[in-house]
Amino acid sequence: MLSVKTPEEVIEVINKNFENLNRIETVGLLDSLGKVLAEDIVCQEFIPNFTRSTVDGYAVISKDCFGCSESIPAILPVTEEIEMGMMPTKTLDKDTCMKIPTGGALPENADSVVMLEYTEDYGDGSVGIMKPVAPAENVIFKGDDKKPGDILLAKGCKIGSKEIGALAAMGIRTIKVAKPLTIGIISTGNELIPSSETPKSGEIRNVNSDLLAAIALENGCKYIDYGIIKDEEKLLLNTVEKALEECDLVLLSGGSSAGEKDYAARVISEKGEVLFHGIAMKPGKPTILGKALGKPIFGLPGHPVASYFVSKLFVCYAIKVLRGENKKMIRAKAVLTESIESNHGRAQYGGVFLENKNGKLFASPVHSKSGLITTLAMTDGYYQIDNECEGIAKGNEIEVLIYEG
Amino acid sequence: MLSVKTPEEVIEVINKNFENLNRIETVGLLDSLGKVLAEDIVCQEFIPNFTRSTVDGYAVISKDCFGCSESIPAILPVTEEIEMGMMPTKTLDKDTCMKIPTGGALPENADSVVMLEYTEDYGDGSVGIMKPVAPAENVIFKGDDKKPGDILLAKGCKIGSKEIGALAAMGIRTIKVAKPLTIGIISTGNELIPSSETPKSGEIRNVNSDLLAAIALENGCKYIDYGIIKDEEKLLLNTVEKALEECDLVLLSGGSSAGEKDYAARVISEKGEVLFHGIAMKPGKPTILGKALGKPIFGLPGHPVASYFVSKLFVCYAIKVLRGENKKMIRAKAVLTESIESNHGRAQYGGVFLENKNGKLFASPVHSKSGLITTLAMTDGYYQIDNECEGIAKGNEIEVLIYEG
Repeated sequence: MLSVKTPEEVIEVINKNFENLNRIETVGLLDSLGKVLAEDIVCQEFIPNFTRSTVDGYAVISKDCFGCSESIPAILPVTEEIEMGMMPTKTLDKDTCMKIPTGGALPENADSVVMLEYTEDYGDGSVGIMKPVAPAENVIFKGDDKKPGDILLAKGCKIGSKEIGALAAMGIRTIKVAKPLTIGIISTGNELIPSSETPKSGEIRNVNSDLLAAIALENGCKYIDYGIIKDEEKLLLNTVEKALEECDLVLLSGGSSAGEKDYAARVISEKGEVLFHGIAMKPGKPTILGKALGKPIFGLPGHPVASYFVSKLFVCYAIKVLRGENKKMIRAKAVLTESIESNHGRAQYGGVFLENKNGKLFASPVHSKSGLITTLAMTDGYYQIDNECEGIAKGNEIEVLIYEG
Repeated sequence: MLSVKTPEEVIEVINKNFENLNRIETVGLLDSLGKVLAEDIVCQEFIPNFTRSTVDGYAVISKDCFGCSESIPAILPVTEEIEMGMMPTKTLDKDTCMKIPTGGALPENADSVVMLEYTEDYGDGSVGIMKPVAPAENVIFKGDDKKPGDILLAKGCKIGSKEIGALAAMGIRTIKVAKPLTIGIISTGNELIPSSETPKSGEIRNVNSDLLAAIALENGCKYIDYGIIKDEEKLLLNTVEKALEECDLVLLSGGSSAGEKDYAARVISEKGEVLFHGIAMKPGKPTILGKALGKPIFGLPGHPVASYFVSKLFVCYAIKVLRGENKKMIRAKAVLTESIESNHGRAQYGGVFLENKNGKLFASPVHSKSGLITTLAMTDGYYQIDNECEGIAKGNEIEVLIYEG
């Protein structure tokens, strides 16, 4: 029998035993996409660095236009036409205005911009302002967004397109990021054949090697695939030894339950320490986490769906710990379109199809008695219900994690 | 004045004017990760291809164990020990059992498996079964999951790790996918300087070139960056011409509003047709979509945040249309931690920080008067409220799109 940990306890074990490897590389701006920031990015400048208009129109002193209307416009002489990329040559005098494009620099004394739509050009060097404007309207002031010393991006943040935009706005062209980890993947089991072959009765295609490689790639890691290793302890021991030397994290798939030929726990304890054997989750119970050469080594269930959820929840978490990444996961609420049965005291995970309808988000759990990996294909996310929950009835809400579309 | 389209009308325009390019390439399994499937994958086999056990235990005929208990176990002789990867050599006789590992092939006649935990090995070639088992319990039957002819993965699906797993399970090693698109990126504006330089007053760093390149890469596209083009119509015309020849979709950033020096609309109409000018959204109103050489060309706002949301919503949609990808976007519901003000009759978009607390999902909208791109950094998603909504008060629910963590 396995002495099982709850999912929360598994997270604690990972936090306690492993830490940021602090292996850092410096890359160019666009090469940092999808990587994890290894330094705080501190603002060196005012953003924006000059006060500017957010519309096409006329820069004014707002007081000069108070009370104007379509029938009684404020008539102001245009003293300058401000060009994009140029500073105004004069300051703005009372009861005058300057023509300004979107993004143009405001002249001194101006506190607002009237949109072109609310003005009329009289063709004699003056315009009529037909709608009053509040102070600061249609204007962004210097430093409104960030000031020198503000933290722009915090260490551990994953760099996406919007962070690339923020870095470009700051003039930052090279960034310190966590070096990609290398994940070692070993599949064990006498029943396994390469997935290119047609299984004879009793044989099963090796799915986990490709599945785990894809998860490694999706998470910005490299991988080494050590292939299918037969259920022979010595052979497995040698392969694990090699993988531990060459990789930052090792995934040993299959042989993780407590049956006679399940070598995973024995091999891990021979090379290091078994931190726990068994997680109170479904699917995924026969999972092992060990520590060898200071590195995490997971014994994953051979069942691909179990292996998938354990990887999504805990292998990905360990990857984040090793490269110092933020570990936040966001769960949304969705209305169940059919009931989910009791999970027998274990946290339970399963794929869902999601649909927005009438302003609500609906989750339809995957129909699958077998729970094979093919049933997860094309799902939009997965649900999680905790170990104390005895199932959720149709029409109630459930927590889901959404894959980005 | 712009004649604006609603976001829904923009989607219609894209659907009506553009279609799947049907440019297909064949790639190896792991190289298909993140790509769009260009063929239906039809099941050729039974999945699973033999009836198997989901637990370690004893294969039985369930009727033989009805009524057994810890005090009155059913005592059955063990006629065979089934090995992983091997078929049983005999059929199961009434009132006997066979030892079977997780994943082992069920013998003929057996209809269920009793878990090891509920048995006792008497050491004399028989075991005691201490808990009855229902027919089909702990068993996956041949073809339970998929049968020959079933669609396994539909054309248009984006291939993630779980789809890689499903393909490996089917023995599929090469896949037809949509060829990556090439996105042309042109930034215009006399005020723009390369983002590596320090802006003098009136100048602005070019953010959009990198931002749009990152969005292209995040969406599995290639890009060609045509740099910053000064506001000269002839120069811009030549660059747009070149980009239209070399790329599948062109993004022209800046000069998209209706000011005098905003050449985007004129250049697009000279090379092809302006489909619309203006979207009823905030930010992002001064957006143009054109069609030239049959290709989409967007005139994007120079303002990076506006450019970001327009790209997320409509450029990414157009990319999906061109490569035949499913266009589903999933919106979750979150509770607002502070009110969002009226959007003046336009659909409104903004970044949010998300947090799960007490079983609910909370959204805190980004604080930013300026709405500069730096304020979007490190957000977890974005909200959308439609044009009829006059703002949403704190404590109410709002629809959010979540970036995957």
